[in-house]
Amino acid sequence: MAVREPLLLGVDAGTSRVRALVFTLDGEVVGRGEAVAPTHSSRPGRSEQTADGLWTACCTAITSAIADPDIAARVRGLSVASCGEAFVPLDEHGEPTHSVIAWFDDRTVPMADEVARRLGADELFAVTGLTTDPTFSVMKLLWMRDHAAAALARTRVVLPVAHYLTWRLSGEIAADLTLASRTLALDIHRRSWATDLVADLGLVPEILPPLQPLGTLLGSVRRDVAHDLGLPPDCSVAVGGHDHVIGALAVNGLAAGSTIDSLGTAEAITVGLDRTISDPAVGRLGFNQGIGTVGTDGFQYVLGSFLASGASTEWARQLFGPDTAHAELIASAVNVPPGANGVAFVPDLRGKLIPTQDPAARGAWLGLTAETDRSSMYRAVLEGVALEAKQLLDSLGSVAPLPDVASIRAIGGNTRNRLLLEIKASVYETPVEYSVMPEATSFGAALLGGLAAGLFTNFAAAAIRGVGDTAIVQPNPEWFEVYRHRLSEVHVPAYRTLSEINHRLTSSRPASTPDG
Amino acid sequence: MAVREPLLLGVDAGTSRVRALVFTLDGEVVGRGEAVAPTHSSRPGRSEQTADGLWTACCTAITSAIADPDIAARVRGLSVASCGEAFVPLDEHGEPTHSVIAWFDDRTVPMADEVARRLGADELFAVTGLTTDPTFSVMKLLWMRDHAAAALARTRVVLPVAHYLTWRLSGEIAADLTLASRTLALDIHRRSWATDLVADLGLVPEILPPLQPLGTLLGSVRRDVAHDLGLPPDCSVAVGGHDHVIGALAVNGLAAGSTIDSLGTAEAITVGLDRTISDPAVGRLGFNQGIGTVGTDGFQYVLGSFLASGASTEWARQLFGPDTAHAELIASAVNVPPGANGVAFVPDLRGKLIPTQDPAARGAWLGLTAETDRSSMYRAVLEGVALEAKQLLDSLGSVAPLPDVASIRAIGGNTRNRLLLEIKASVYETPVEYSVMPEATSFGAALLGGLAAGLFTNFAAAAIRGVGDTAIVQPNPEWFEVYRHRLSEVHVPAYRTLSEINHRLTSSRPASTPDG
Repeated sequence: MAVREPLLLGVDAGTSRVRALVFTLDGEVVGRGEAVAPTHSSRPGRSEQTADGLWTACCTAITSAIADPDIAARVRGLSVASCGEAFVPLDEHGEPTHSVIAWFDDRTVPMADEVARRLGADELFAVTGLTTDPTFSVMKLLWMRDHAAAALARTRVVLPVAHYLTWRLSGEIAADLTLASRTLALDIHRRSWATDLVADLGLVPEILPPLQPLGTLLGSVRRDVAHDLGLPPDCSVAVGGHDHVIGALAVNGLAAGSTIDSLGTAEAITVGLDRTISDPAVGRLGFNQGIGTVGTDGFQYVLGSFLASGASTEWARQLFGPDTAHAELIASAVNVPPGANGVAFVPDLRGKLIPTQDPAARGAWLGLTAETDRSSMYRAVLEGVALEAKQLLDSLGSVAPLPDVASIRAIGGNTRNRLLLEIKASVYETPVEYSVMPEATSFGAALLGGLAAGLFTNFAAAAIRGVGDTAIVQPNPEWFEVYRHRLSEVHVPAYRTLSEINHRLTSSRPASTPDG
Repeated sequence: MAVREPLLLGVDAGTSRVRALVFTLDGEVVGRGEAVAPTHSSRPGRSEQTADGLWTACCTAITSAIADPDIAARVRGLSVASCGEAFVPLDEHGEPTHSVIAWFDDRTVPMADEVARRLGADELFAVTGLTTDPTFSVMKLLWMRDHAAAALARTRVVLPVAHYLTWRLSGEIAADLTLASRTLALDIHRRSWATDLVADLGLVPEILPPLQPLGTLLGSVRRDVAHDLGLPPDCSVAVGGHDHVIGALAVNGLAAGSTIDSLGTAEAITVGLDRTISDPAVGRLGFNQGIGTVGTDGFQYVLGSFLASGASTEWARQLFGPDTAHAELIASAVNVPPGANGVAFVPDLRGKLIPTQDPAARGAWLGLTAETDRSSMYRAVLEGVALEAKQLLDSLGSVAPLPDVASIRAIGGNTRNRLLLEIKASVYETPVEYSVMPEATSFGAALLGGLAAGLFTNFAAAAIRGVGDTAIVQPNPEWFEVYRHRLSEVHVPAYRTLSEINHRLTSSRPASTPDG
């Protein structure tokens, strides 16, 4: 029997769906599984999962991905990437003390106010690199302090979702810097937990797990788990991390100066830094920083996002009819000139983060005439999304000393929207490079497993080998002037212009000061 | 052979379509015909028809309506209602000297500026009751002066479309006050042509036709025409008039204080007056006045309109999919609470007229979230259209001494949209009455034929008999507060709020002063 090529398993635990993909070292997908982790909502704005629900979805996804025994037998390493902020609190027996509060759950809004008041937003940014956004893990711990005190008192460790799953898989507890960067409990300059800050907020720093580099070997998969799932008992489990960051690492995108534009439901732009930023102006605009270590290499980055990118394009498609295909909309929008025949779209369908944090911001279609058709309206959505990303990058450039951006690397599902990439390149006035492989996050997680398994020692080189070819979309200089005008004269002012009306629309009752 | 019930024929010559309906005196429709009058456009914004095209469409519609010889033989009288502003210029042989420039053709924009400059908008309103809008007939004559001088020099008479068609039918030339009210050449206080004003603009007053009351007998239908169309040779042809006004007269809506809300592609609100208004403030807001005489009774009214009423609802339906039915959208929008879940629609799809004349105004959907669905967006369109009408009526009330409005009478195609009427009643905070008969304009024209034929002497009594039952939609007091808030806090301010962005969107190139 010939020596068989080793395989790697990457798990991507998203907001509601866990995916598992088996890769060759060349990045070829040879197995695939997916499962939904049920989400519960006790009232509007709230959203929870159970730790067991996440674990069950992870197991289902893995067993589907390795259903072929020949594939299963060759999996040498695995790791998990997950969304940030959410965590599982565990008691001394390893039992959850509370449900998993979703990253976007809004119960923590009052806690954000408290943190800002007690510690100061600028001071917090100076230590953690984060804003006082309600989503961060510490906000959820403060909510437990107020509303689930007994559960919090029994809690011995809190594990971000990816680390909870690697603990279930390996039996070993560890967290990494990329997910720690989303807790509001990390000192990004000292690269360790900010125990003083945590204690100042009345929380117990001892519940924070030990920090390890990405790709650290936690051990082999637990024998009982290996048996249940059909994994080889010598399969290595590696420390995983934050999904966006793992995806960026896989496309080699966190070197200083490199810019990753992650086109998911939300859009996140990550710029690799040569050192962390202390200037509070960056935080005030709504940007966050993060750090990480892969193998022995440390990296740091600044990250800005807006919440309705793919959410906007998908929302428009649904609106035009559930049977309408993006391909059909794209084909018709290609024939619409830049500027969408005077139609503009404001993509604040889930509020605004940068440069102003405003949950009451709302989306809008402007410039409509009786001749406006869905081709123009769809193109306006693509343009609005592209302009929002440009505004974000410009905001960052206005306060942070960024290296010149030579090209922007796009990852995520919407890289399949060719017209969107063409518009984005023309709005950025920079080529947009994208991987032909759309599964960067899972592949990055798989590579961390390979690092732990000792299949290679250079993560970056392995990533380049596996991610393979990239394609480049060139900007169209004939569109520059239209988009510059749109950005400065329409897109940027639109938020302020609509702000008062949007606040009035969120309450349909008369305000106490009708002229306010 | 028993005495057979007499029938009447009403022709409604709309913008692009001529309809002919045969009615009993009780308002029952017993024959129907329709034909398209082709429209030509030599460039965007321009739109023309030929006089022969209109006449041919009229003949086709009539012959279809009276295809049944038993019905044809019983037609005792007919008349024609048409849209305003457009006219046919005829030479001494009765041949057209120029094509028929559509009411909405935009070539006359420079002429409106000239008229405002030379005569003054307030002075013009004081005489004619009209604003300096480019649509009025005099503007088109001034365009001919500059661009078709030879044709204008050969012109011996200009006939508004309805009067052109009654001339072709009867051989007699006359015009009426309602269509004369749309020329900008009528002195509405003296109820005669404003010959001095016309001469001041360098035009020849002699080309204006003699004025006659609505329903005046022009004569019997020409023998050759009767033969060609199959009409009885003793069928009376009556002086007709302006379509909106004839429709309003048919539902008995031009008595002083009565309010007619005509729900077509555009929406026109007509309020009957006990005397004409001289206050220029009314004109400055974009309102027009008109006068008329039916039989021996004079009447006068003030009229305001916005251009995208049915145009907005139909546009939204098309956008959601050409196969989507209004009934389906209405059924889903009924379940959306008032305020459309925070979505608002600005219906300026064809610019704005009242209280600000701004062709660069644009439509908008505001308050969109990722959860917004088409039910809310469609309800927002209905609410936006209803609020626009309310704003119009409030604007009028702010400057004109109007009698208390007891109920509002809706006519036109969109009276079939029951949810729209319910929203309108709740926005007006007044019951909305509508005729079960939707063909008020054609019926009014038919009744004018009956008056000329001597079938009755009291037009109003005949109208009440024929129009028959009306239904009343009551306002829903639980919606009042939401709509009051929407009107004052969102709908009214939205125009100013969006104005600058809309002007920037109409040019996609940078303005000379980018911060302007």
